[in-house]
Parts: sequence; C-alpha cells; structure tokens
Amino acid sequence: MTARALSFILFFTIGGAAVAQDPTSLDLMPMPAHVTLGQGQFLIDGSFAVAVNDLADSRVLLGEKRFMEMLWRETGIPFAVESQARNPPFLIYTSGLSGAVQQVGEDESYHLVVSTTKVELTAPNALGVLHGLQTFLQLVHITPQGFAAPAVTIDDQPRFQWRGLMIDAGRHFQPVEVIERNLDGMEAVKLNVFHWHLSEDQGFRVESKQFPLLTEKGSNGKFYTQEQIHTVLDYARERGIRVVPEFDMPCHTTAWFAGYPQLASGPGPYKVETKWGVFDPAMDPSRESTFEFLDKFIGEMAALFPDAYFHIGGDECDGKEWNHNARIQEFMKAHGMKDDAALQSYFTGRVQKLVLAHHKIPEGWDEVLQPDTPKDVVIQSWRGPAGLAQAARQGNQVVLSNGYYIDLNQPASEHYLVDPLGGEGAKLTAEEKARVLGGEATMWSEFVTPENIDSRIWPRTAAIAERFWSAQDVRDVDSMYRRMAAVSLKLDYDGLKHNSVTRMMLERMSGNADPKALEVLASAVQPPQGYERESLHEYNSASALNHMVDAVAPESETARRFGLLVGMIVAGKASPAQWIEARDCLTLWRDNDAKLQPMLAGSELTAELSGLSKSVSQVAGIGLEALDDLKNHRAMTADVRERNLQVLKAAGKPKAVLVDKLVAPVELLVNASAK
Amino acid sequence: MTARALSFILFFTIGGAAVAQDPTSLDLMPMPAHVTLGQGQFLIDGSFAVAVNDLADSRVLLGEKRFMEMLWRETGIPFAVESQARNPPFLIYTSGLSGAVQQVGEDESYHLVVSTTKVELTAPNALGVLHGLQTFLQLVHITPQGFAAPAVTIDDQPRFQWRGLMIDAGRHFQPVEVIERNLDGMEAVKLNVFHWHLSEDQGFRVESKQFPLLTEKGSNGKFYTQEQIHTVLDYARERGIRVVPEFDMPCHTTAWFAGYPQLASGPGPYKVETKWGVFDPAMDPSRESTFEFLDKFIGEMAALFPDAYFHIGGDECDGKEWNHNARIQEFMKAHGMKDDAALQSYFTGRVQKLVLAHHKIPEGWDEVLQPDTPKDVVIQSWRGPAGLAQAARQGNQVVLSNGYYIDLNQPASEHYLVDPLGGEGAKLTAEEKARVLGGEATMWSEFVTPENIDSRIWPRTAAIAERFWSAQDVRDVDSMYRRMAAVSLKLDYDGLKHNSVTRMMLERMSGNADPKALEVLASAVQPPQGYERESLHEYNSASALNHMVDAVAPESETARRFGLLVGMIVAGKASPAQWIEARDCLTLWRDNDAKLQPMLAGSELTAELSGLSKSVSQVAGIGLEALDDLKNHRAMTADVRERNLQVLKAAGKPKAVLVDKLVAPVELLVNASAK
Repeated sequence: MTARALSFILFFTIGGAAVAQDPTSLDLMPMPAHVTLGQGQFLIDGSFAVAVNDLADSRVLLGEKRFMEMLWRETGIPFAVESQARNPPFLIYTSGLSGAVQQVGEDESYHLVVSTTKVELTAPNALGVLHGLQTFLQLVHITPQGFAAPAVTIDDQPRFQWRGLMIDAGRHFQPVEVIERNLDGMEAVKLNVFHWHLSEDQGFRVESKQFPLLTEKGSNGKFYTQEQIHTVLDYARERGIRVVPEFDMPCHTTAWFAGYPQLASGPGPYKVETKWGVFDPAMDPSRESTFEFLDKFIGEMAALFPDAYFHIGGDECDGKEWNHNARIQEFMKAHGMKDDAALQSYFTGRVQKLVLAHHKIPEGWDEVLQPDTPKDVVIQSWRGPAGLAQAARQGNQVVLSNGYYIDLNQPASEHYLVDPLGGEGAKLTAEEKARVLGGEATMWSEFVTPENIDSRIWPRTAAIAERFWSAQDVRDVDSMYRRMAAVSLKLDYDGLKHNSVTRMMLERMSGNADPKALEVLASAVQPPQGYERESLHEYNSASALNHMVDAVAPESETARRFGLLVGMIVAGKASPAQWIEARDCLTLWRDNDAKLQPMLAGSELTAELSGLSKSVSQVAGIGLEALDDLKNHRAMTADVRERNLQVLKAAGKPKAVLVDKLVAPVELLVNASAK
Repeated sequence: MTARALSFILFFTIGGAAVAQDPTSLDLMPMPAHVTLGQGQFLIDGSFAVAVNDLADSRVLLGEKRFMEMLWRETGIPFAVESQARNPPFLIYTSGLSGAVQQVGEDESYHLVVSTTKVELTAPNALGVLHGLQTFLQLVHITPQGFAAPAVTIDDQPRFQWRGLMIDAGRHFQPVEVIERNLDGMEAVKLNVFHWHLSEDQGFRVESKQFPLLTEKGSNGKFYTQEQIHTVLDYARERGIRVVPEFDMPCHTTAWFAGYPQLASGPGPYKVETKWGVFDPAMDPSRESTFEFLDKFIGEMAALFPDAYFHIGGDECDGKEWNHNARIQEFMKAHGMKDDAALQSYFTGRVQKLVLAHHKIPEGWDEVLQPDTPKDVVIQSWRGPAGLAQAARQGNQVVLSNGYYIDLNQPASEHYLVDPLGGEGAKLTAEEKARVLGGEATMWSEFVTPENIDSRIWPRTAAIAERFWSAQDVRDVDSMYRRMAAVSLKLDYDGLKHNSVTRMMLERMSGNADPKALEVLASAVQPPQGYERESLHEYNSASALNHMVDAVAPESETARRFGLLVGMIVAGKASPAQWIEARDCLTLWRDNDAKLQPMLAGSELTAELSGLSKSVSQVAGIGLEALDDLKNHRAMTADVRERNLQVLKAAGKPKAVLVDKLVAPVELLVNASAK
C-alpha cells in the first residue's frame, strides 16, 4: 500500500489499541488463561541469557536454544552463544519428565513472571516450558528504551487438549521444509497436533518398504522417505507437537491402486488422479486379501508413526464401484448389508480392529460414526455442527473441524467464532462435553503449492489456535484482529512466507521489481470463498497456481479495515480524519487503473486482470461520489442510485477468479447517501 | 516506494530498454561472449522437460534437477518430476569428465541454441552445462504468451579462470545456510571460486581434530564442524565452484592464541578479540614449535579441503609483539633480518614450504610478495592497483581484489569499471597478463550479520562477476544497472535475502507491519562509504547491527535513478514527464517527515532517525524550490542560493550513521537554478 494508505492503517492501529492495564493490550495469541499486568518492563540487551535448572528432558535445552535464536531474529541483538553471565536473568524451573511419545492430555501449563529485573518460567514439564517461551517471545516488542517485555504474571493452560492443524500432502505434495516451517508456526501459537494427510486420489506420499509400488506408481516421484518422516517426527516432538498420520480409506484411494489394483473394487487399470473432486475408486471390502494387505501396511505405518492415534479417513465414498461389481453385490447380499453405508461400516469396522491390533487408537472422519461404532474410535467432525454432538452423545471422543476449513478463504472472524462447545456442542452434558477433545484447522491442498500454502494457513490459524487454547469467552473480534496482526509479523521472523509470498508472486507475474500498482489492486480483492473457485475456471493437478488469485491473501487486511471505516462513516461515528482516510483510499483505488492498465498486457499472468482493474476503479469512483454526497448532506438521486447499484451488482461478480471486496462497503455508502 | 515513485521507476525502465536486436536487450549477466538473436521465442509450459545424453558426471544430472526447481521458482509452473515426455524439448549434450577436484583453468565454455521449438545446450563438460543452464534461466521472462525465452544462439566462455567471492566468517560467523544460499547466487552469475576466510582475531571457525582448543577457546561456540565443511564442499562442487580456505597468519591470529598461547609472540594471556581493527598479536617465527604446530594443522586442513590452492593470509602485521619480544629480536639479529618485513618474509617462506609439502599451492595477500617469493605462490592483490602488476612482473600468478571490496558500500559502477587488466595491468606484457588469473570480491564482515550479509553481496557482486567473465569492452554502466536489476529479481527467487531483508528490518525497527514512511526515508539514504562508519560510532563484535544503516542497501536504486533524472533536467534533456517525476519524488521526500516524525519516538531504533528525517525533508524542499525556479526560468537569488547551499552542506554530514543521497543532486539543481 502507498503512503496515503499507510496513515489509514496507522490510524486504525492507534485507534484500536486497548487500555494499557487491560491484558488484551498485550499482543498475545492465544490469550493466556490468567494475566496480571505489573509495573515497568524487562529490557533485553546483549547480556540476556537463560538458565535451566534441569536438563533431564532434551526438549527443554533444545527449546531454549531455539528460543535464543528466535529472540535474535525478533530483535537483531547478537546474544552470546556460550553465556558468560553468572546470573542469567531468565530462569527456567522444570522437573517432570514425559514419556518417549507425547500423550494426549499431558499437563501443558506454565507460570511466567516477568519483572523489571528478571524472568521466571516454571512448568511441570517440557511442554509447559515450550509454551511459556513462546509467550515470552510474543511479549517482546520495541520501546523507546529498546526491546522489552512488560512486567506481567501469567498463569496459563489450554482449554482443549487436542489443538491441531491438518495439512493435505496428497493433492499437492508439500516438501519437508514446508512442513517444518509450519511446525514452527504451530509452536508459536501453541498448537499441539499435526495431522498429516498422507494419501489421496492424487498421490500416495509415504515410502512403504512393504509395498514399494505405493509410491513408485502412486506419487509421481513426490513422497516422503521414511528417513524424512523420522526427521519431521523429531522436529515436531521437539516443539511439543504430536503427529497423527492419516491414510484415507476405503475411498480417496486411486493412487494406491496405481501400484496395487487388486485392492480396488473396479476392473482398473488405475493411474494417479489429476482432477479434483470425489472419485469412484474404492477398496474392495469383499476380499480377505484387502485386509491382509492393510494389516501389513498398518503394521508398518503404526511402527513408523509413534503417536497413539492412527487416522483411517473414511470420508466421501460414492459407492459406484461397489454398485457396479457383481461379486461385491453378492457379498453384501450374503452378509445382509442393505446399502453402501453398511458395506463401508463393515470395512471400517475391520480396519479399526487392525488398527487396535497394532496398538493404536483409530480416528476417522464423520462418516465412520455408525450406530455400532466402538467407543474407542475418535471422530473428526467435518460435515456440520451436528456431527460433533452426535459423536459425543454416542460416547465417542471427537475433534471438531467443521468451521475450520482454512482452504475455503473465509475471514478469520468466521473461524474464530466457531467454538467446539458452541452451538450444538453447548447443549451437551458435562460428561459428553468432556469427550470433545478439541479441534483442527484443515488445509486441503487443491489450490495451494509449497510456495503459497503458508498464506492460506497464516495468520488465520493463529485465531483458530486461540479458540482451542483460550477461555470460551475470549471472542472479541477487533481484539483478535489486532493481536493476530502482531503474531503475523512475528511469524515473518520465524521464516513463514505468508506475507512475503504476495510480493514475490506479483513481481513474477509482472516481471517488475516494484509492482506497486499491482499491490494496490491486490489490496482490494480476495479469492472467492467456499467452493466457488472450481466453478469459475477448470483446474487440475497440472494447473499453474501462479495467478493473482494465488498471490493474494484469503482475507485482505486493507479491505477489511476499509469496511470498518465505511461502517463508522455510515453510522455517523467517523472522525474528520477518518473521512479523509476513506476518501484517500477510494481515490487511490480509483486512480490505480490508469497506472496499471498499460502494464497489464505485457504479461499473460496480468492480462487477465484488465477487466478487474477497471471494475475496481469504477466501484471506487462510485464510492467517492457517494462519500462526497454524504459529506455534503446531498441525497443521491434515485436514478443515479439505481444506476450505481446496477454497476455494483455487475462488479460483484468474480473476475479473473477474484472478488472485489470494495463492492459491499461502497454499496453501503450508496444506500446511505441515497437517504 | 509509493505509487507515485512507481511510475518514476517504470519510466526509467521503459526509457532504458535497449533496441530489440541488441544482445544487451537480453537480461543476461554476465553478458556472454557471443550472442546472436533469432526470431520468435520458446514458450515454457507444464510439458517442459530436459533430457541429458550422458550422465557420467553426477553434476550434470544434479544440475538439471536444480535447474527444474529454479525454473519452477521463476515461473510457478508445476513441471512433472518424472517427465512422461517422449521428446523433451531441451537437450543437453556433454561427454567430458572432470577429475574429482575441480581445477583452475578447466574448460567452462558452452553453446546454447534456443529456437521456437527446442533448446540445445552443448558443453565439453559439466561446468559448461551448469553455466549454460544459468544463462537459460536468465533468458526466461514473462511475455503476453506466457513465460518464454527468446530465440538466440550463444557461444560463451569466461575471460578469466578465477572468478571469486570471499566471505569473512571470522569477524561475524556465517552459518552454513548463509554460505549455501550465497553459493547459489555465485552459480547464478557464474562465479567459480568461493574463498572462505576462516580465521580472524575475532574467531577461529573450523573444527580441528588435531587442535580442538582452536574452536573450544577461540570461537565462542560459533564454528563449522568438519562434517559441515564437507557439506559445503559438496554443495560448491555441484555448482561448479572451487573452495579455497584461508587461514590468516602470522597476524589476525588472536583467536588461535586463546587456546594455544605458545604460538604467540607476546606473553598473553589471550582471549578472542571483540573490537575491530588491526591488532598486535602475531605468531612467533622464532620457535620451531610454531612450525611443527602449523605443519600438523596445515596437514589436517589440506586433507579436509581438496582444492589445489591453500590461502595463508599474511596481511596487516604491525610487528609490535615481535618488537617487544627480546628473544625474537635476538633471533632476527642472529639470522641477519633487518626488519619486521624480513621476519615476516622468513615466516611466510617457512609456511609456504609446509603448504607445498602438503601438495597445495600457497596463496597470500599482497604482503607475502617479497623479492625472493617463490614463483609458485599466488598473490591476492588488495592494497592498490600497483600490487597486481608488480606480482605479475615478478613472475607470480595474481588475483585482484583491490577495487572489489564490497564491504565498503561503494556503488556497483565503481567496482564494475575496475578491470584486472586495466590501469597498471594494461601495461603488462602478454606473458605477464597471462599470470593474472582473475579477481575476487571480498566481503569483510565487521558490519554484516547472517541476516543482512546478502544485501552487501548482492546484487553488486553480479556486476563484478560480469567484469570477470565478459569481454573487457563490456562496460556500459547504464546497461549494467538495467541487467543487474533483472538478475537481482531472479536472485530473490533463488532464496537470496538481499531485497527482502530491508523490509523485514524496517518492520522490526518500528514494530509496524507496514513501515512505508520508513521505506520512503530509506530510499533516500545510504551507509557511509569506505571506513567512515567506524569514525561515526563505536562498534565491536557485540554491537547489534539492527539499525537503519544495517537495513538499507549499500546503493539506493531510487536515489541513483533520481540522480540520473536531475542530471537530465540540468542538461536540458528532460521530458515533461521527467520534470513531473522529479517533482513527485521530491514532494514525497519533503512531505514524508511529517508522517514519519510522530512514529519515530516510539522505538529506540527509530528515535535516532529524527534529525535525518527532518534533514532529508529540508533538502527535498530546497530541491523543489530550485526545480520550480528552473521550470519557470526564474533565477534563484544569490542570497537564497547561498543559504540553501549552507543547508545542503550541513545536510551532507552523516546523521544516524547514514548519508543523504539527495544532497548532491539537489545541489546540482540549486547551482543550475542560480544561473
């Protein structure tokens, strides 16, 4: 954004700051359970050092080393690697040991006291230490005296024990470096479950030594070796994060069948799917050989992944291959299975037994919940708010993902206000509520590459992480957006690419090192929400995701703030400075098309933006007109209003697979000015 | 920069474009030896693939894999990992094998033909293939039809066989990831020698198994393990880059003495130096034990580093420890050494013999060249242009670094115009000229951290790389700047941080996610050149290099372009659009202080910028006044001129360790408007 827009953003930053004695004035996310602000601040300089009283758990020392590295990134202060400090000002007290494998429900609490002279972090085990260190990193900010953390006492522990992020490495493979940097992001916001979606119609992503054709034929060469899996598991464990692998079955399994067609219910031949959607291929539940294969496969993977939980998928079976297979139909009749759901239930039941036999707790998507589902199966609820309550009532533990589909480009506020124990969940008994383990954000990967996936996950997942960690009544959206912006900046220092990727992609699209006019356009638009993108253009796994829709953030912070500004103007609550800011923003957007238009034709990737740029300019022009009418207490005539609303209606339709986020606030202005 | 400045920059980009049939219209750097432009272009889409005719040298296949990865980063097009293409459009023909260790003077030529339907790259060995692949990557750019390379025939080979970059890992340790990404940058611009400066007064940086105290006492924990050295050596070799290690002696050796004081000429005790400068500690040439130690040490390092050359430093001995040591004075008298230079010459001669005994060719800085220096010692000339000629005349091979000190914040054009065979070098005979192996850019690290080192190396080192590779008459500065900007953008995609670090550091300094007003200030200023910085503020190895002077580029591209614009205006050659651009830029800079000033006090790191911001604004204001006078053919009165020149004089003094680059062009305007 330009200098004019800058002051606009600054205004809101200043305007939105909370009172100094209010804990929400601290840029913490997730907000801790108890925060008491003290007086003064703890200054950080080159003599800063940390001492640990107990090094029994290697995660504490490793965590402390990473903490110092992060503090260097946050401040640029070169701390001594080997501290000569006799009395390090930051003391960590911990004693408890964890097992070799992190468990669900381990104590994650910590107690952090920052005074003007020292910092004390106490936690029963390494998990609490790691969380406390992250809280301290969030407390550090630049002040007139230098980098400092405010004096504060924090007592903290999570509300839910299962706080996850799922990444789909099946549809678009995500290399280890992508996974690792997102594990860093997870640690920063205290998420503790990485759910790794490892097989899909479009790719099987883990080396199997038992069944090498799974990747040889089913991955196009893009998969994790078992050595890489070990690397990621260690990386996650050091950050207090469990890793739950998912092998989706009996459907979403086309890639398995490329190497092992005998598992399938159809005649084949099969090859890795390149389209997106729900496909017919399904495992054959009628053959014992299927379960013999799965027994060996699950055995191998259960040994590779140490976590107590093992996700077997189970979603979206269309049943077509079953219906077209006479032998399977025969089998169903013989066993009294009246429909596909019954057949899937039989399959799932058999697989659950295999998982249990390999000493793992099975987990599955909504669909695996049947009246006779064993109580030790964990349900991941994705289809609707009712699924969670149903599972909990039926006696199963449950993890909520419905409402946290971060691939759908919804605003952070929408995810933020979904609570695992809100809605239907609120009606549960205390016993049933206890079965709600927590929730998971899900990053399905039809439309993300290793390049831009961070921008779909962050910073919105920080808001979801707060939902899972903080008290249920922490739900002030303005506060959330302010704190999320602060966390987003810290995630930059951590190496996440959610912010930097936009600029890089706009440079690449235009071949221009300073694509400012494209940035101005980008600030006004967003990708379409939900599943609309697929209806606007045809995509498959070979599509280049290098267009504007792939470069811009799911939620434009500038457009969001502009919307707030218009809301204040229409409500008659805007200051004179805010009127000016709104005018400046609209002027910038209106005049941008003239600058941008001559450059667009030079690149295939920007040529498609011509109509969008023109439309955004037009909408901004209407907004300016309406703003001036409002300012001068001049009513827009019915004719003009009608014409403008027609233009806005047309502008509301996606162009170049992008949505103009100015349309709604400008419509507000037009309607207000017509009164 | 803001939207107004954008159009300014664009104007110059368009204005500076060369004629289409001119090879310099291609964004290639270094410019190849022979370029013939063809008709049309080769389009790159998802079906693009490369076939290699001979896989005997693993560097070819590894290089091809990295090439595909880089092409993905440059375009965002998902190429198939395992190509199904029956007739890949890009064919590589090579046959020659290299030895296990890359040699000086190996053939690095290649022949690249791009037509509208195919690409053929032919090279006698892997080195040429690697260079040709980088040339192709530079040819690719976005067009209205998509990403494409123009049809072209290129015959290319380097002018010099030794094209180096030295990185000083002694003063500020640079982790492996920093070294690796800079090796990527080196490969991109066809540099082929990484000179690794590994020991300094402030740190000894390589694990020695023979002498573990070198790092235990001499590195503050920051050093490369031998395993890491192997990693870097492999990384470099895969990219066609030799690695020449340097262990500087007998001076710059304080860090050695922290663990092994018996090597020193003084009484000790010694500890790692924390200040910058030239220090007294020196090895003791009078004891045989010194050479026994060095024999073992050099033996160990000669085995670790496979390159044929071994750099023993030899610069900047002040002789004080020798002068104060009676035993050494006695030794000198006994051996008829009349001064410190003679003693150093004796030391160097002994060490050279040790290096030769371990089958390496010794290399040293200027100072090691004495009348009796053996002809097999390579001289690295740093003190002045005469040193190179002297060495060549004396019969020694020589590498030029004088003129390529990239730590001194000089403009790219100054380095670019220094030629190893220009000046004194031009006067050499053909035989003497043949002894000039090439040159090396030197990145001394008093004022760089792992965070900002890329911004001191790139993009200016690309211009130096062209000097070493391309014909001597390739020296058009405007063309160089245009092509360097294109390469700089490509280096972004490679993962170099020279461009992105500025924004990150400005965000951190201000705690603001959108520090646009700081960016506007940053665009007008530069770090001081030469060694002036040290005279403006006290620094040592514990200084936090997180200020504006550390964040901004050594050469402001915006200020440089503004200077060109003013030059055209003063010469009466500016178009009406250029007058407007100049006015817009000056207005932006003048008005920026009012926006910035209120924010500066909030951070210790920006508070120091208050005076600078005000001064830049004032200078811009004077520039505007002068511009308007010029425009209106109104002569500035002598009084006003005098007052303005006084203000500019004061503004010309560094503030907050930064130099205002607007002063010189504004002075031009004032002087022009007074006529």
